[in-house]
Amino acid sequence: MTVMRAVELRGDRVLILDQTLLPHRVKVLECRTPEQVRRAIAEMRVRGAPAVGMAAAMALALAALRSRGSPEGRLRELEEVAEGLRRTRPTGADLFRRLEEVMEAVRRAAEEGRDLGRAAVEEVRRRLREYEEVERRMGEHGAGLIPDGATVLTHCNAGWLATPGRYGTALSSIRFARRQGKRVRVLATETRPLLQGARLTAWELSREGIEVTVITDGMAGYCLSRGMVDLVVVGADRVFRDGHVINKVGTYPIAAVARRHGVPFYVFAPLSTFDLSGRVEEVEIEHR
Amino acid sequence: MTVMRAVELRGDRVLILDQTLLPHRVKVLECRTPEQVRRAIAEMRVRGAPAVGMAAAMALALAALRSRGSPEGRLRELEEVAEGLRRTRPTGADLFRRLEEVMEAVRRAAEEGRDLGRAAVEEVRRRLREYEEVERRMGEHGAGLIPDGATVLTHCNAGWLATPGRYGTALSSIRFARRQGKRVRVLATETRPLLQGARLTAWELSREGIEVTVITDGMAGYCLSRGMVDLVVVGADRVFRDGHVINKVGTYPIAAVARRHGVPFYVFAPLSTFDLSGRVEEVEIEHR
Repeated sequence: MTVMRAVELRGDRVLILDQTLLPHRVKVLECRTPEQVRRAIAEMRVRGAPAVGMAAAMALALAALRSRGSPEGRLRELEEVAEGLRRTRPTGADLFRRLEEVMEAVRRAAEEGRDLGRAAVEEVRRRLREYEEVERRMGEHGAGLIPDGATVLTHCNAGWLATPGRYGTALSSIRFARRQGKRVRVLATETRPLLQGARLTAWELSREGIEVTVITDGMAGYCLSRGMVDLVVVGADRVFRDGHVINKVGTYPIAAVARRHGVPFYVFAPLSTFDLSGRVEEVEIEHR
Repeated sequence: MTVMRAVELRGDRVLILDQTLLPHRVKVLECRTPEQVRRAIAEMRVRGAPAVGMAAAMALALAALRSRGSPEGRLRELEEVAEGLRRTRPTGADLFRRLEEVMEAVRRAAEEGRDLGRAAVEEVRRRLREYEEVERRMGEHGAGLIPDGATVLTHCNAGWLATPGRYGTALSSIRFARRQGKRVRVLATETRPLLQGARLTAWELSREGIEVTVITDGMAGYCLSRGMVDLVVVGADRVFRDGHVINKVGTYPIAAVARRHGVPFYVFAPLSTFDLSGRVEEVEIEHR
């Protein structure tokens, strides 16, 4: 099976590239039930706010395809499935938003007497196309920030493994910089405790022939202070109206040191990651 | 064998607690030759600037005890041994200083017609007593900086495993705070890549009943920003006249974030760690 997406909806199955096994093993989970997808999210087999959000939406679409009975009963059932999915990851704004989008679509379909399963699948497909476009535009825009010959530091994984599309968020900028013919070198923090940088970012970039060096999280400060980094690019789990960004633990010390040394620090996040009503103090940080 | 010291000179043997095996195995290496000690330093079986410096001094004393022939020939031989020891760790000021102290002692002994081996051993014993006193005084002084009920963040290992004495440098302050009846809790970064915090600091403190929680290096910034840390204590490999401190990679981002949030950050270092003539730009940083 060709691996081109972190998560895909194919017919009545959701395909999830199991990120807990990378880089040693490339294995795709075929989920036939919403519960299998929910478990894959809870076990971090799929991760990255945009990919998790879309996986959850796909799980809800599976539930809509499988549900039977009166529209009211089916809507209640779907609400329960959505609630179970919401509980998997408290930090991600994408997750809540994607689930709400699918719920709205099935509610509308129920009102208008249309098929709930089909409405859910159509909503997922529409959002996927939308997100593909978002990744492309983040990449094109971000590439303009990267000078030729630059060394880019990144933390955690904000590539296509973290999104439903082909480019990722922060790493999309590096891909498009390369397309523009620029030479780019990446320093990837290993990103403890689950090593998303060492396992995922390094795998993702190196299989496209992009030069990547893994450093420990603590080394980022040294590299920044010694002028070894031209810019930092990271993704985000949530962005608030006041500019606060929630991202993988360890992002903050890197940002603080980058600021001290005047190294540009860019956060790549689609609008679906923005939370315009919440406040950073109210966020429940995941401890795992 | 009771383990009370990272490194000890007993008769014609140097005993080194093998820190690469902790916390799973407590094993003491019995070194009978200077070369065995040199290898133990190079392989990081003994680590921490003060412990490494004293281990090197002990290796030189072993060489002095074993050498035979004319005083001139013996001095030349000892110079060669010292040179091999110097090359093991470029960052530590202690190492160079301790070796020079023993070399001075044997040179004086040669001039005055005294026994070189005995002179070297006496010099080592004198410096050990001196260092024991330094650790005690750092602890007493440092304890005054720790409020009752404090949470202290530390990076790497600056306890007795890093020194020739019984208290350590930065961690001595925690031990003496406890002796004064204060409640103290420690957050220890795991300290990638070799996990000195998770393996050594956690082992050392927990076996004395001091509450210690291991966090990833990247979490230090989060804990500091959320007011979970009252003060930070670390050791040092070298301290310069202008205030620059060389310590384990990852120390700098912690210091930068501590500063942003007004959390006191203390470096514990004896005078032997001070380098009053060098400049930080000239230091060869170890990459391993």
